[in-house]
Amino acid sequence: MSNKPERDSVVRSRRNFLRRTAALTGGALAAGGAARAAQLPIPPTNREPGRVIDETAYGMPSKYESHVMRRRTDVLKNRQNLSDWSMTPLQHQPGIITPNGVVFERHHSGTPDIDPKTHRLAIHGTVKQPLTFTMDDLVRYPSVSRFHFHECSGNGLTDWLKPASTTVQQTHVLDDALIVYAMNGEALRPENGYPVRVVIPGWEGNTSVKWLRRIKVGDQPWHFRSETARYTDPMPEGKWRQFSMVMECKSVITSPSGGQQLKGPGFYEITGLAWSGAGKIRAVDVSVDGGKNWREAMLEEPIMDKCLTRFKVAWNWDGGPAVLMSRAVDSTGYVQPSVQDIQKVRAIVGFVQHHNAIQPWSVNAKGEVRNVIGQA
Amino acid sequence: MSNKPERDSVVRSRRNFLRRTAALTGGALAAGGAARAAQLPIPPTNREPGRVIDETAYGMPSKYESHVMRRRTDVLKNRQNLSDWSMTPLQHQPGIITPNGVVFERHHSGTPDIDPKTHRLAIHGTVKQPLTFTMDDLVRYPSVSRFHFHECSGNGLTDWLKPASTTVQQTHVLDDALIVYAMNGEALRPENGYPVRVVIPGWEGNTSVKWLRRIKVGDQPWHFRSETARYTDPMPEGKWRQFSMVMECKSVITSPSGGQQLKGPGFYEITGLAWSGAGKIRAVDVSVDGGKNWREAMLEEPIMDKCLTRFKVAWNWDGGPAVLMSRAVDSTGYVQPSVQDIQKVRAIVGFVQHHNAIQPWSVNAKGEVRNVIGQA
Repeated sequence: MSNKPERDSVVRSRRNFLRRTAALTGGALAAGGAARAAQLPIPPTNREPGRVIDETAYGMPSKYESHVMRRRTDVLKNRQNLSDWSMTPLQHQPGIITPNGVVFERHHSGTPDIDPKTHRLAIHGTVKQPLTFTMDDLVRYPSVSRFHFHECSGNGLTDWLKPASTTVQQTHVLDDALIVYAMNGEALRPENGYPVRVVIPGWEGNTSVKWLRRIKVGDQPWHFRSETARYTDPMPEGKWRQFSMVMECKSVITSPSGGQQLKGPGFYEITGLAWSGAGKIRAVDVSVDGGKNWREAMLEEPIMDKCLTRFKVAWNWDGGPAVLMSRAVDSTGYVQPSVQDIQKVRAIVGFVQHHNAIQPWSVNAKGEVRNVIGQA
Repeated sequence: MSNKPERDSVVRSRRNFLRRTAALTGGALAAGGAARAAQLPIPPTNREPGRVIDETAYGMPSKYESHVMRRRTDVLKNRQNLSDWSMTPLQHQPGIITPNGVVFERHHSGTPDIDPKTHRLAIHGTVKQPLTFTMDDLVRYPSVSRFHFHECSGNGLTDWLKPASTTVQQTHVLDDALIVYAMNGEALRPENGYPVRVVIPGWEGNTSVKWLRRIKVGDQPWHFRSETARYTDPMPEGKWRQFSMVMECKSVITSPSGGQQLKGPGFYEITGLAWSGAGKIRAVDVSVDGGKNWREAMLEEPIMDKCLTRFKVAWNWDGGPAVLMSRAVDSTGYVQPSVQDIQKVRAIVGFVQHHNAIQPWSVNAKGEVRNVIGQA
């Protein structure tokens, strides 16, 4: 690594990696002391036999990765009865696939135990012919596989004018997600709707009903409590906007992000995720000075419709205070707004849903990274 | 579903699904008795509270999916000492992502227990400056995320002239996979090389060394036992070809596939996976009559370089004997060969690596699906 990282410094192949690494002549990561030019200690071979295969066991992560887990929020303590949620550790996720073992959970009555052999799906309401289906029926229909994001409309609902959350795991929660019975190459997990759910790509997560028993077709919107009372937007003139289903364009830097600690000045790769319920991500700009200057980030292929897109930009931290921000633009031309932009068209009162504002993270001289929403 | 399935009958959206389903007037899947037009029994609401969140637990599949597991082969029983392998249940995998919990394993001395805090990677040999890296060093470098297939060169090595394997789990094993420390959004699993491995996209799996301790740079090929003695190709004139690293274009129908049971005549979606170590998949043809007639399958986006590509084609089974085959073409124009094609240029003697021949599955009048490699 040089002290002048450039976008094209991104390692594009193992061959490049080796060529570039071999070309270092005693150079080291500016701050980390990464590459040591001492007498080369070839790491010793492991002389103990390893663990044999247990084919009755579904594979699990290494015990050294036990910190990568879903977490409840430490901000909202108003859980009532069984209504509960847990959040995806996006700060530990490379790429755009969220492992099923850490996809976020949100439910009001716990996770039901449903036997797919006895489960039925009914379609009724204003239809010529009501129908019921077994799971065997459903899987026999033609199917499609797609990559999509899936986001809770309540993400960041506590974080508008001041930071209440500490980490990106608390501020943004996501996964990828039709009549759906599988995710990431296997059956849905129980907490994500097993054996069958709805997924509406680009819409707020609560519309993607889990543990699906019936679809009632109607000719007007259903006025359910949460959709009409909770998942609504307060407007400046004192009215509330209902049925704002599409999750608008949004991005967040996942590294460095809140709660992380930089190990001294030098090279860092700023990386994060961008998505839009309205289409594809066209561009992401990144600022390291609180929005004064912006630089276009590299977007990693594949860039897919209504799907997480990974962005990356090289950064040489000089050790001084910094405020990191990302701003996404989608294929409709919509630009991700700041909290101040949103305040011009909506009232920020109480727990406000559909928070897609720019997320600022501050870095102080000690390298500590903090949430400074509403303050930067 | 109608009795005249067409490619454009693929359900493309929930809206379409509903519109088409609602348009059924007492119609049912031709054979399955899928959609029942009886008095509509709305499935009862679950009145018991469900399982609460355990945030100390990494998420696991439903207990009703315990049949979806890695398996040892029941063909090769010559495991010596700790050399062992297990195989991915591709027949249960929708889409192109293999869940980390069921990615195949292959190792000669068991899975080591490596602490990433003490692990080191050395680069030495014909380099100006030998280097060692900690894991913290490595993850600080710029990174890329990519979708790639990963295949063992020994896939199908017992199945050339007659079928020895029963299911697609035994005949084709695969997953997606540079200097790599994460897969599918999380750290590598121990059995797949934790904390760090090499991945060489498109090359035979054994070259993607796991539990990486050192990279020794040289100016000629290393002649190791397995690469020179085992992962070689017997040629007709009695010679053996070494260093044939690229996995050539290949495809396999995963459903219906060996060991599965069709539930009577009617509509089925034939689906499978295609990939090439030389580039992207351009087309896949499917035959249901043992290769007399071929029909072009639909390829599902995204179609990525050296990556699994999902193909699908509608099939109305008349209840008579059938032989299903798929034949892939890659972006270089290379067409997946039959066993007979390969026999013209290579000798099929003993356990032969690099088996990329067309895989035929027979369907009899009872709906039983069987492996008929070398016989169809």
